[in-house]
Amino acid sequence: MHTVETVSLDDARRVIAAGEEAALAEGQPVNIAVVDVGGNLVAHIRQDGAWLGSVDIAINKAYTARAFDLSTADLAKSSKPGGQFYGIQESNHGQVMIFGGGVPLLSGETVVGGVGVSGGTGEQDETIAAAAAQAL
Amino acid sequence: MHTVETVSLDDARRVIAAGEEAALAEGQPVNIAVVDVGGNLVAHIRQDGAWLGSVDIAINKAYTARAFDLSTADLAKSSKPGGQFYGIQESNHGQVMIFGGGVPLLSGETVVGGVGVSGGTGEQDETIAAAAAQAL
Amino acid sequence: MHTVETVSLDDARRVIAAGEEAALAEGQPVNIAVVDVGGNLVAHIRQDGAWLGSVDIAINKAYTARAFDLSTADLAKSSKPGGQFYGIQESNHGQVMIFGGGVPLLSGETVVGGVGVSGGTGEQDETIAAAAAQAL
Amino acid sequence: MHTVETVSLDDARRVIAAGEEAALAEGQPVNIAVVDVGGNLVAHIRQDGAWLGSVDIAINKAYTARAFDLSTADLAKSSKPGGQFYGIQESNHGQVMIFGGGVPLLSGETVVGGVGVSGGTGEQDETIAAAAAQAL
Repeated sequence: MHTVETVSLDDARRVIAAGEEAALAEGQPVNIAVVDVGGNLVAHIRQDGAWLGSVDIAINKAYTARAFDLSTADLAKSSKPGGQFYGIQESNHGQVMIFGGGVPLLSGETVVGGVGVSGGTGEQDETIAAAAAQAL
Repeated sequence: MHTVETVSLDDARRVIAAGEEAALAEGQPVNIAVVDVGGNLVAHIRQDGAWLGSVDIAINKAYTARAFDLSTADLAKSSKPGGQFYGIQESNHGQVMIFGGGVPLLSGETVVGGVGVSGGTGEQDETIAAAAAQAL
Repeated sequence: MHTVETVSLDDARRVIAAGEEAALAEGQPVNIAVVDVGGNLVAHIRQDGAWLGSVDIAINKAYTARAFDLSTADLAKSSKPGGQFYGIQESNHGQVMIFGGGVPLLSGETVVGGVGVSGGTGEQDETIAAAAAQAL
Repeated sequence: MHTVETVSLDDARRVIAAGEEAALAEGQPVNIAVVDVGGNLVAHIRQDGAWLGSVDIAINKAYTARAFDLSTADLAKSSKPGGQFYGIQESNHGQVMIFGGGVPLLSGETVVGGVGVSGGTGEQDETIAAAAAQAL
């Protein structure tokens, strides 16, 4: 048996609140999702006017960031044609997102969950996700 | 062309907050989800300790309540073997939940979204969902 | 942030070994799977001669037992036509099994994972899963 | 009528044990899966700390290696844009992995199963899978 740290609902709300503020600063409504250490959804919000199709993407980005303990922007680099993980998005039943906006949530150096942002450009999603993750 | 009313993120949060309070009164951690008039997720929370398998169920109950404009407890009655909607749960890619805990969100007499609760007994989920829906 | 206990690979192997012994006593080859506190697979074995179709079922039973913190035999009772959870198997993308053979793994009174057994009769699967779970 | 050779659970365990040892030498926790001659899972383990998202990938790499009787590293070469098998990963319901870490299991020159490793870099996964396969 061993023990693992994980985000609570309070943590998830703090992360989401920071993401919303950053989205407001960008002038870009988005979806923001937080998963726990097991990759399971803890909380999600869609800002008014954000893309409908981004609900699923935000949740999946959060999952991906935790499932592989790296940002989806980093995963994007190695999953391009010719990259060492090219084709990884076929796994895990459509849950693997290979473009920016998913970031692991860290307690010290330990991954304790993930946050996913979707609705803006790749760059905007990454900026907002980074701001969200720092609020943990 | 016509106009439709729908819940905003602020509305969803008010609904969820009322549900959380009711869940606390029941002593039962749950998942609570709100969808808009289009049946698309606006917000979701999983209280600490709530069932993992209820994330999907809460979201689906909210969807079902809006998709058919009735409570999932009412739908349960007509979707039993012999009922007029028996088998309806096979439609819509697993999103149709036919047991209590999903309630339409009303503005006057118009359905503007749905709320879904999952994590307790059927009775608890219904009680919490009703309390949540009234906060709109 | 909070801390949760979860099964390790060593724990999973001990659970599976006990299940294998029980299956041998029953004279019934089976699949045995263990998931962690997040519902994610830790280990799986298929005994020689066990049903191919039971690979997926054993893994899903283990998931279900953890996702709802109860045995799938108990869930079976409340998900029959007329039961309070009738229709629950439509949720979670085919992962919810509503017949016996999935049992939560407990550390004291805390659920730290799940074990699923599939390949025999319902009764055999339950007996083997119970024996496996006790080895934790 | 004809006869096929296939890996037993004992064989799968020997393969996995060799993979675990190689993973330890690499200092990289991984998932290791073995499928039989029919492409069906025989055994799987996730070492403590290995990626959650790699459960599915390891199982799929093992399947792919047996399904096409070649290593997934070799398949990667011909499934790049412009390659003769470009697009093959769309087949078989997401089970085809086109990056290194899946290796056929051989009895003499006959394929009798497959092993899949996921959790490290492509190179690490290939090294570990090769070590595992040699233990058959």
